[in-house]
Amino acid sequence: MAAPVFIAGDWGTSNLRLSLVDADGAVLDTRAGPGAAAVPAGGFPDTVRGLLADWDAAHGRLPLLLCGMVGSTLGWVEVPYAAAPAGAAEIAGHLHRIDLDGRAVYIAPGVKGTNLQGAPDVMRGEETQVLGALITHPDLAAGDHLLCLPGTHSKWVDLSDGRITGFTTAMSGEIYALLSKHSTLARGAAEWDGTPDAGFRHGLKRVAEAGADVLHLLFETRARQMAGVLTPKDALGFLSGLVIGGDVAATLARHRALGRPAPTRVVLVGAPALNTLYTLALASHGVAALALNGAEQSTAGLLAYFRRL
Amino acid sequence: MAAPVFIAGDWGTSNLRLSLVDADGAVLDTRAGPGAAAVPAGGFPDTVRGLLADWDAAHGRLPLLLCGMVGSTLGWVEVPYAAAPAGAAEIAGHLHRIDLDGRAVYIAPGVKGTNLQGAPDVMRGEETQVLGALITHPDLAAGDHLLCLPGTHSKWVDLSDGRITGFTTAMSGEIYALLSKHSTLARGAAEWDGTPDAGFRHGLKRVAEAGADVLHLLFETRARQMAGVLTPKDALGFLSGLVIGGDVAATLARHRALGRPAPTRVVLVGAPALNTLYTLALASHGVAALALNGAEQSTAGLLAYFRRL
Repeated sequence: MAAPVFIAGDWGTSNLRLSLVDADGAVLDTRAGPGAAAVPAGGFPDTVRGLLADWDAAHGRLPLLLCGMVGSTLGWVEVPYAAAPAGAAEIAGHLHRIDLDGRAVYIAPGVKGTNLQGAPDVMRGEETQVLGALITHPDLAAGDHLLCLPGTHSKWVDLSDGRITGFTTAMSGEIYALLSKHSTLARGAAEWDGTPDAGFRHGLKRVAEAGADVLHLLFETRARQMAGVLTPKDALGFLSGLVIGGDVAATLARHRALGRPAPTRVVLVGAPALNTLYTLALASHGVAALALNGAEQSTAGLLAYFRRL
Repeated sequence: MAAPVFIAGDWGTSNLRLSLVDADGAVLDTRAGPGAAAVPAGGFPDTVRGLLADWDAAHGRLPLLLCGMVGSTLGWVEVPYAAAPAGAAEIAGHLHRIDLDGRAVYIAPGVKGTNLQGAPDVMRGEETQVLGALITHPDLAAGDHLLCLPGTHSKWVDLSDGRITGFTTAMSGEIYALLSKHSTLARGAAEWDGTPDAGFRHGLKRVAEAGADVLHLLFETRARQMAGVLTPKDALGFLSGLVIGGDVAATLARHRALGRPAPTRVVLVGAPALNTLYTLALASHGVAALALNGAEQSTAGLLAYFRRL
């Protein structure tokens, strides 16, 4: 077994994933822990001590590199955002260092920038995945690329010569979660496991033919069931198709409205199941996708920071 | 006091409003009761008996006319929809009669039709308010008019020579409720009383300049607070401005896309506070509004049914 050189942590609102990483970026072992929202105020040091005791005993107190909401107001310490345009140098230059019992802990800054509509936008954690993608796929370091990091708050990121120049947050994941769990649309709908079924494809087709105006399409999830043209089994997939299809269609429409060239490929950085849904949504508009595993890019991005320490 | 001739009931999912009405449509007295969702299966007769005992003692068992979700699968009895195009004659022709202890109870059908995107759509209760508006404002009975009935599920209704020809449901009210109560956007936001404040106007302005793509604008509610350009006090008003502004902008954009003439006036039929917000949203696009009280139109619509019995 290769020797671990640092510990990578992706510490979001709901989950913490810790990885023991060697000098080449290989993950030797992993641990899960509580999300930042579940850690009481002042409780971050003890949470880390408890989770790392075994690895410390075996390997000594390795540096800990963290990204995500751990650097937000609800995290360990609020780390100021790096300002876009920002690449690895600018972002790594804003790492916040804490000394904990002789261990160096580094927390990544988020990035603040401007969205496609010209308003302020922010990310925390996604910037590290983007930098990771630059490590695992060096061809992304030159030229212009459009990335999409699907999730609760999907991020559409413009990357130019290896730097994040701007990005737009879409509420697609949270909207789907709220509507599928709490709304009248979901009444009577069957469970959906998130695989691209007939309902999902129906939703994508609907957006492709009717446009990105999701607010006025969502109710079809219910009206089509009442009209007998959508089964309860297909209802949640249809809803997801509307939301994800709407996210993609609105992004492409915004590019057109701004006179930007239509993207021919989007680099997806996310969980494999979500990447699959977005790949299909992009395909319904004739756009190719390159799907990268988000967790792997996160570790690679933290390795990029480690190498710059 | 004029003699009451029937009892009007607007029985929605969450509320029941009963009115004792005279032959001219004047409301002599009112009662509130449980929404259809709160009535146990088979419990509608006893609920009515309990609420009407006083009035029965004073006036005898007057006919009871009901509209709203009381005619849905979660109501007293499921009443089949009338099909658009439908006016007072077609809708009144589908009233469902129940005999309860010698009292005649009539439940209005909803209306099924086609939305602006060509898909099936349904309403229950709003059709009666539309017919009421035709009674209180007879000038609406001729020519083409665009109505908006704002609410949990806002309805945009095309009225042509006094008949509902088609309508589109927007999820605006429910989306705002879900986002303001359950989402990460509302974190840290101050309460909002629903009056058109600086935040609401800011949201309207944002949609007017950036377009109807609400999915990609909503996150600005949070990002603008983090950037210090939106106060927590103004956040929920801003969110409402985005949602209501987006509803209006998307409707106007859809009309343009379909090559329809731009509406110069929209007839709002709703609660006064909500009418005010939609009036401002329409004004931000240069469209005039005529605001009618929804509860009053509901009573007037039930009177129209009563006169056709």
